[in-house]
Order: sequence, then structure tokens, then C-alpha cells
Amino acid sequence: MIELSPKLNTLTPYIPGEQPKNLEEFIKLNTNENPYPPSKNVDNLLKTFEVDNLRLYPPPHLEDLREVIGSFYGVSGENVFVGNGSDEVLGFSFFAFFYGKKKKILIPEISYSFYPVFARLFDIEFEEIPLREDFSIDLDIFLEKSSICGGIVFANPNAPTSLGIDSKRLEAFLESLDPNIPVIVDEAYMDFYGDSIVNLVKRFKNLLVVRTFSKSFALAGIRFGFAIGDSFLIDSLFKVRDSFNSYTINMLTYEIAKSVFEDIDYYNEIVSKIIKTRERVKNSLKEMGLEVFDSKTNFLFIRIDKEKFNIDAENVYLKLKENKILVRYFNSPEKIKDFIRVTIGKDEEMDIFLEKLGGILGAFKG
Amino acid sequence: MIELSPKLNTLTPYIPGEQPKNLEEFIKLNTNENPYPPSKNVDNLLKTFEVDNLRLYPPPHLEDLREVIGSFYGVSGENVFVGNGSDEVLGFSFFAFFYGKKKKILIPEISYSFYPVFARLFDIEFEEIPLREDFSIDLDIFLEKSSICGGIVFANPNAPTSLGIDSKRLEAFLESLDPNIPVIVDEAYMDFYGDSIVNLVKRFKNLLVVRTFSKSFALAGIRFGFAIGDSFLIDSLFKVRDSFNSYTINMLTYEIAKSVFEDIDYYNEIVSKIIKTRERVKNSLKEMGLEVFDSKTNFLFIRIDKEKFNIDAENVYLKLKENKILVRYFNSPEKIKDFIRVTIGKDEEMDIFLEKLGGILGAFKG
Repeated sequence: MIELSPKLNTLTPYIPGEQPKNLEEFIKLNTNENPYPPSKNVDNLLKTFEVDNLRLYPPPHLEDLREVIGSFYGVSGENVFVGNGSDEVLGFSFFAFFYGKKKKILIPEISYSFYPVFARLFDIEFEEIPLREDFSIDLDIFLEKSSICGGIVFANPNAPTSLGIDSKRLEAFLESLDPNIPVIVDEAYMDFYGDSIVNLVKRFKNLLVVRTFSKSFALAGIRFGFAIGDSFLIDSLFKVRDSFNSYTINMLTYEIAKSVFEDIDYYNEIVSKIIKTRERVKNSLKEMGLEVFDSKTNFLFIRIDKEKFNIDAENVYLKLKENKILVRYFNSPEKIKDFIRVTIGKDEEMDIFLEKLGGILGAFKG
Repeated sequence: MIELSPKLNTLTPYIPGEQPKNLEEFIKLNTNENPYPPSKNVDNLLKTFEVDNLRLYPPPHLEDLREVIGSFYGVSGENVFVGNGSDEVLGFSFFAFFYGKKKKILIPEISYSFYPVFARLFDIEFEEIPLREDFSIDLDIFLEKSSICGGIVFANPNAPTSLGIDSKRLEAFLESLDPNIPVIVDEAYMDFYGDSIVNLVKRFKNLLVVRTFSKSFALAGIRFGFAIGDSFLIDSLFKVRDSFNSYTINMLTYEIAKSVFEDIDYYNEIVSKIIKTRERVKNSLKEMGLEVFDSKTNFLFIRIDKEKFNIDAENVYLKLKENKILVRYFNSPEKIKDFIRVTIGKDEEMDIFLEKLGGILGAFKG
């Protein structure tokens, strides 16, 4: 038997939503992608790209790209880390902030399910802090437990619950917290909420805010995420990255990422459209008698009450799939087994979703 | 003081060759990039790329791309791992094969200097096996020490020495070795040698061969590397990767990588050209009285005898830089302090290099 790392047997990888091969047959509402295309700028950029440049390595530290991002968010380039998707940024952050510490980190009981995966990968102990009864993150418990913790990680708005914590509440939380404890706030969905705490990184040097171009910027395919924080935190991320992979951002992603804020009006416009659709669909679902959380994201978290509808969430997911609509169902943990998570697509896609869902629920209600 | 990972203080990141901002002013012979552009296919592909697809995540396991690569190298898709550059592939391999083992791994004293960086990052103990006097890798010592080792890693051809080991010798080495010891052979430069052991992965299930599109395929900018080995090894790499980043290959790199072998004749042609230039430049350098190793790569490893030329390697590097020619100089380890490593560029670039180098050496010889 070939002897590999003893670690392998303890790993339980993250499982992303399905990407079926016959994609065009489906309405894809399962991985929180943006239903609208990226800006026309991206098209122009690819059409005029000097292919000869691909023979060269990209700049290792991408200073100009980091300046562009920094200036948009009101910080300097040295406050910006960039990575191959926000998953990679989070992975490096877990390593740089928590690896080898003797203290547990705190994460919400229900949140992005990659957090425990990173923690297990790097042998970082973690404690899952229970959500409140209404599924919101309970910052009071985080605060209580913080005195013996090695760090805090959560998403805001949270996934898959879709709920947000307002920036005033987070500011008060950070004020109460020991300033030596690193805090990672994953703002992957923040543009659909509009209440970021990026501006607080200057005041709280222990705060790292993680962002992505995969959702509001409709660029999941280029794999680009970034983090904003004090240069002490950013330097530590580069130190880890440069011990793993000197060039994580390819030349094409680099060029596209630099161009994104030039057409910010377009991205604001599609975000507004998605929010408008979200509110409309949420109301329709409520009219159908469904419980839907007050989403601050580009997806809805919908409870399927088995008693009421005579069908459970898993079967609704399966029936929707039969009807060529992909949504996300999580069969664990127990607490979210009665839910489906549905990405906000275009209006016409959501109309079909509502119609099919209505049909499925109607058929079983008998 | 913000409390981060205690690991950070022990890290010494890999330092890649400079990528100056005013790139066009330089003849860049310092990072072993290909002087020729990638195939015209790549240009067509970018010009016709459906930008709307960038809103979607790439397929997580890229089955069709792995099939394409596998079929080119005579294995199946399940024998192929893919990553964001071969550095990432190597990083995951170190973790999957060696992390947490109680045994040392063996690497050559002089080889790709990222190997000890990976090992330190993941707390993997390693022993550096001395090169022979002629700077070649001494497989006999590897074999002697292998009984108590956790794995073996080396590059073939080796860098920065440029020397190759022939496949027959490696086959005999693998036959003598305990088949439970994982062996990583980094063939980043193999296309400039043409004596690969990829075909041996079927026989030796402990062998992982790592490859890149950055050198012979002139695509350093897309960040694409891969590994070929038994599916047991490949599965372990995906298990680690999927615990770190579900989508390491962006959509554009994915499409370009799939297209590469369609124009293999072009890539063979530029490789032949580079080999021809290499041999010519090597002979010219020898005529100038320099010692140059018998390169099996796209670079030359050149000894600057300080006694003979009255200037040391570091100053030759600096003088070349003043003359707008970038080559690579390593100020450690001691053993390679008398060398410069020079990438093979286009014929006209190498003529300028030879002329400038001649001028520098002539001026000091006095």
C-alpha cells in the first residue's frame, strides 16, 4: 500500500452545487451565480487581448490591480490581497491567522460550509456557535466565548440563511472584542445588501473583509476573490501564498479584474435588478403560504413545511430537478433539512420556477 | 499585537524572477518563459469566447480537459490532476503525500527551490541529498536513504542545473525502490529533453509526474499545470484540493488548455527552434571560454570563473541588467554562487546577449 499523508482519511471535502453537463437544458438556480452577463468591457478586452503576453508569467504581486481595488474601496493597494476565488483567499486566511494556534476558532453553527473544511484541513480546532431561533447569527455568544478563542469567522450576509447583520451592530461587536483577535468577515453577497464594513478596516486592524467577483460582478468563471484589511494582515497572507504558489492570478483574470470598476454602473444596475426580482419572488412565495427568510443576498432560503405541504424539501428539490430546475438542497445539518436555497435568476426564469413549484406543491397538497 | 499563526515567523517564501514594470525595455531571459507566442488557436479562442459563460463557475473536476490530456499522454482522464500552475500541483502533492508523516522526504541539494518552501510550509521534514561533483543528481544516495524516507521529489531535467537523467536510469531506480514510497518527478522542462517517464506511471503506482504549460507550451500567463499518475494518487490530490478550493482552473484557462494539443505541431516546432538556439548559444559560450552545462532544458547554466574573468557571477548579472538583459542569479546556496541561469530566447535576443556578455567579460579581463 502506497503510504500517503495520514491526514487524507480525516478530510471531508466541500461539495459545490452540481454543474450538469447538459447545462443548457436547465434553469440553474443552485450555485448563486449571476443570471446576467458581465460588462461588455470584458468582451472587448478578450477580443483585443495580446495573446503573445500569455507566454509570460503574470506579475507576482499585481500591485496595479490591488491599487485599483483599493481605491474603489477607499484603502490603499497594500490593504488588498487577491486570490484565485474567495475560497482561496479564505484558505490562505485560515492558514495565516489560525494554523498551529492552541486556541479554537469560532464559526456559526450554520454558515458557508467551507469554513469547517478549511479548519479540518489545517488541523485548526473550531467551535460552532448556535444560531438564534430565527436563524440569525448570535454575536453575543461569539463575544462571550471570544476570550479564549484564536479567531472568529462568519459570512455577512450569511449563507445559506440569507440573513444580514447591519454594520452598526457589527461595529459595536468589534468595539467590544479584544482587538488582538483576528476576525474574518466574508462579504461574498454584500452588494445585494449594501451595508458593508469594509470602511472599518482602518479602525479595526484585526478585521479582514473578504470579497468576490463571482456574485455581484457576474464573473464566477474568472475565479477572482480579494480581501481588505490592515497591511499587517495582508502581508501575512502574501507570506503564506508565496510559500505555496507565486502566481495565483492568471493574466486574463488579472486584466479582466482591473477593468471591472470602470463599468461599475452596469454592475450596480444588474444588482438592482436582482434585488427587485428577489423581492417580487419572495412575496409570491409568501402568497403561496411558504416561509421565506428576509434575504439580503442573491438567493432565497425557503422552508418547506412537510406537515403543511405533504412533501419534504428534498423531494421538492428532486421534483424541481425533474422539471429541469436546479436548486440547492442540503441534507445536513439537521437544522436546514427543511429548506431549499434558490438563486435569483432572470425574471422569466423565476416565473417558471414559481409556476413549477406551485404545481409540485399543489399536486402533493392533494 | 494581533495574534496570527505562529507558523508565519518560520516561513521563507519562494522568490520568483523579477517581472519589471518596464518590461518592453528588457530582453527577459530570467524566468524560463518561451520566447514564442502560443498557437494562433488561442487567439481565435479568445476572440470567439462567449463572455456570458464567465458568469458561471467552471466545472469543478474538468473531466473533459483531463480526458484530453490523458489521451495525449496515453493514460485515462482519471490519471490526470490539474492545477493553477505546476506550483499549485506540487503544493497539493506535498500536502497529500507527505503532510503529518513521521518520516523525512528526500530532495536534491540543488533543485527547484520551491521544494524546501513547500516542505517548511507544511512542517514536512526533508533531507537534501548532495549532487555529484558534476552537479548531476545522485540517485544512488537517494536509494540508500530511501528505506527510512516518506517520499522522494526531484526535477528532471533538473533546475537550475539544466541536467537530465535518462529514462532507462530512472526506470532502474524505480525498480529498485520500495514501491510504497511516493516519488514525484517534476518534468516542467521535459519537452526540451524528450525522454519522459510519463509512460511508467502505469507500472509504478507510486510515481507522480508533474508537468506544466508554462514552458514548452508558451502559456505561463494562463497558469496551468498537471500531474499524471495512478488514480489512487490523483484521487488523493483532489481530496486535498477540494478541501481548499473547489474551482482552481478558471473558465478561460480551461478552454485554452483543452485546445493546446490540437496544434501540437506548432508547439513541437517552437521547442525544436529553442533547442537549436540553445545548442548554438552553448557552443558560442564555450568558444568564449565559459563552462556551460549540457542543458536538457530551455535555459543554460553558465559558470563564471572569477579567477579567469576577473568578475564574479553576481556582477555579470548586474552588468547585464544595466545593459537591459535580465538573467537569473542565485546568491544561495554557496554551490551555485558562481553561476548565472540564462533562458533561451529568440536567436536575435541571444545574439545581443552574447555580444553584451562578451563585452562585459572583455572589459574586466583587462
